[in-house]
Amino acid sequence: MIETCRALDIILDNTAVLEGERVSLIESFKRVLAENVVSRDDLPPFDKCCMDGYALKSSHTVDGLSKFKITGSIKAGDFWNEEIKAGEAVKIMTGAAVPPGADAVIQVEKVKTEGDELQVFENVHTGNNILKAGEEIEKGSIVFKSGKFLRPSEIGMLASLGYNEIICHKLPKIVLIITGDELINIDEKITRGKIRNCNEYLLVTLIKNLNACVKSYGIIKDDKDKIFDAVKSAFEEGDIVISSGGVSVGDYDFIEEVIEKIGADIKFNSVKVKPGKPVTFATFKDKLFFGLPGNPLAVMNTFEMFVAPAIKKMMGRRDVVTEQFPVILKDNFKSKGDRDNCIYVNIKKQDGKYYAYNMGSQSSNALFTLTRCNGVVIMKKGIKTAKAGEVLNGKFIFK
Amino acid sequence: MIETCRALDIILDNTAVLEGERVSLIESFKRVLAENVVSRDDLPPFDKCCMDGYALKSSHTVDGLSKFKITGSIKAGDFWNEEIKAGEAVKIMTGAAVPPGADAVIQVEKVKTEGDELQVFENVHTGNNILKAGEEIEKGSIVFKSGKFLRPSEIGMLASLGYNEIICHKLPKIVLIITGDELINIDEKITRGKIRNCNEYLLVTLIKNLNACVKSYGIIKDDKDKIFDAVKSAFEEGDIVISSGGVSVGDYDFIEEVIEKIGADIKFNSVKVKPGKPVTFATFKDKLFFGLPGNPLAVMNTFEMFVAPAIKKMMGRRDVVTEQFPVILKDNFKSKGDRDNCIYVNIKKQDGKYYAYNMGSQSSNALFTLTRCNGVVIMKKGIKTAKAGEVLNGKFIFK
Repeated sequence: MIETCRALDIILDNTAVLEGERVSLIESFKRVLAENVVSRDDLPPFDKCCMDGYALKSSHTVDGLSKFKITGSIKAGDFWNEEIKAGEAVKIMTGAAVPPGADAVIQVEKVKTEGDELQVFENVHTGNNILKAGEEIEKGSIVFKSGKFLRPSEIGMLASLGYNEIICHKLPKIVLIITGDELINIDEKITRGKIRNCNEYLLVTLIKNLNACVKSYGIIKDDKDKIFDAVKSAFEEGDIVISSGGVSVGDYDFIEEVIEKIGADIKFNSVKVKPGKPVTFATFKDKLFFGLPGNPLAVMNTFEMFVAPAIKKMMGRRDVVTEQFPVILKDNFKSKGDRDNCIYVNIKKQDGKYYAYNMGSQSSNALFTLTRCNGVVIMKKGIKTAKAGEVLNGKFIFK
Repeated sequence: MIETCRALDIILDNTAVLEGERVSLIESFKRVLAENVVSRDDLPPFDKCCMDGYALKSSHTVDGLSKFKITGSIKAGDFWNEEIKAGEAVKIMTGAAVPPGADAVIQVEKVKTEGDELQVFENVHTGNNILKAGEEIEKGSIVFKSGKFLRPSEIGMLASLGYNEIICHKLPKIVLIITGDELINIDEKITRGKIRNCNEYLLVTLIKNLNACVKSYGIIKDDKDKIFDAVKSAFEEGDIVISSGGVSVGDYDFIEEVIEKIGADIKFNSVKVKPGKPVTFATFKDKLFFGLPGNPLAVMNTFEMFVAPAIKKMMGRRDVVTEQFPVILKDNFKSKGDRDNCIYVNIKKQDGKYYAYNMGSQSSNALFTLTRCNGVVIMKKGIKTAKAGEVLNGKFIFK
């Protein structure tokens, strides 16, 4: 039985970032760049007008009235070829290219016009309301480095630069194997001794939420040969194989035996964490195997602590571990002290501080408790009681 | 020109929650329940064993050694019909149904066996390691009320209760109209006076991130008839129509004219916010129209402030407005003071406090700034300077 932080180190040491693949810009959303992105153009690509107004030579304005002859109009998307001369002005719309010879734009709200005469009442500075070509980004410069996580702002920026395809790290493919002879499908009626397969749905949505790919083999009977075939096939098509159930010391817990037979390298098979002690981690070639417990709260806890960081690392993310912060307890909590105890709670923010409320049973089957919680506080190994008012480290779940 | 808070009130007052529709359990992820969910079974559905061990009558144990005859073995998923008698024990696996007559389970680690004899060394309490039928949830009780947002834990719970379909609020369908004669598609080469259409990609990913449905009509030329046809068609197929560009005072800004002609009810056409003042909001029957500005920073800002809350409300969410919190400035910031000024910054957490760093140009075209930011601080109308060390309200973008 190893410490939780040691378990996470072992997992991350054995997890490699997946290679890059070319994807469409929209598909790259919430993925991680696997190439440096270089600007193919100046941005803006031309001296750009930032206000509706008149383009002119600023040297022709004075402190007081100056007059110009309006020689035309430029809308966004048009391009004006003729050189503007002193004493001339061209009406110009926001987003249009400033015509050659002009070095300033005066806003429409600040001038008067009579026929084709423009009246300006102030000394206009050079560069006024003009964004110079390349002022935002110069052609050839690196805009994003490999490793950048792509949010809407980055997707918009890449569109501006003309990237309709981009190289991102591949998304890990995860295969689920749900074991347990007590399990029936969710559309079946409960018969004696049976419960429904909730872990598959819990895991599928946890994985989808990380933007990884998931395929479930569904319920596999507690039969050594069937589990062997399932795990073998899963290693062939997945980057990560996750099983739930079958990792305890019961007579029908075959997972560890099966993955040994396949030739996987078992790195650990229990961790000092509650809920979720009997969690198995193994590698097989460049594939990872996580044998999670069978109870849903333990599945959730071990997925968040151990599987999610591996998935994030594979897809190239740097922020693989969920941020923790101090939480003030509003209730008393107990622990056996033998393991790091993750207590599922409701965390509320008041006056900039976080407070944790007891939401009921922490039994590893108590999925209902989880539906009333938004976070976890951690009673470290060695701590047996934590009283209201004390401070523990906590974190949010499913943000 | 109206205040930002008044604008948001008007939007939400005119936004109705969409009706419910039946969807598969996996499809219901990140959606909102539109029905109360009642438990169809007791959970657990039977007295359930929580540890690998032996089921027995607790009254037959003493402070010291007591002996039992092992009469069989029950694995998870099996059901034992015969009544356990005093002096008898049945081996039982985690998750299995406790046999009739037994009222406790003693863990396998705490006993010794010799052949079919079980030796117990302590007084076992009634109920030990047994989760009673219905202890978690009773049949017929309300598990989730209408309005519940469905995270992985709720999806797992609904699976446990046998819900393979569920009624959720419909997801709003959003149609995009991108206007501007200066725009070219992202796979086209920049020619004189043109820029690429980044707003479509910015908006598509912002909408996808909210789990709503989006369809883009692409670039529509600055032509009254073409914009009219696009908006008319968009109102037919969408719940929300969003345009970008064409809402300023330029000679080719037709949006307001067009939606008036269609018969939409314009509620406001400018808001005291920077970036994003010229934002138009209108209703047409039960549909909403948002005319956003053309510059990307203004698009992002007005989408987050005004469109996102409407989308969230339509899909039944209660948390429609992004939480704000106090942020300490690390740099000096300026504002004209005439509008609420949203300044895009990088927010870092240090010792439980949030600090805002200046990341560059706040010009409404400065999408590149946005890619270096994770948040916003708000200089309220009337504030012209905010110095390092001062505290402003802020919020995160794209969490």
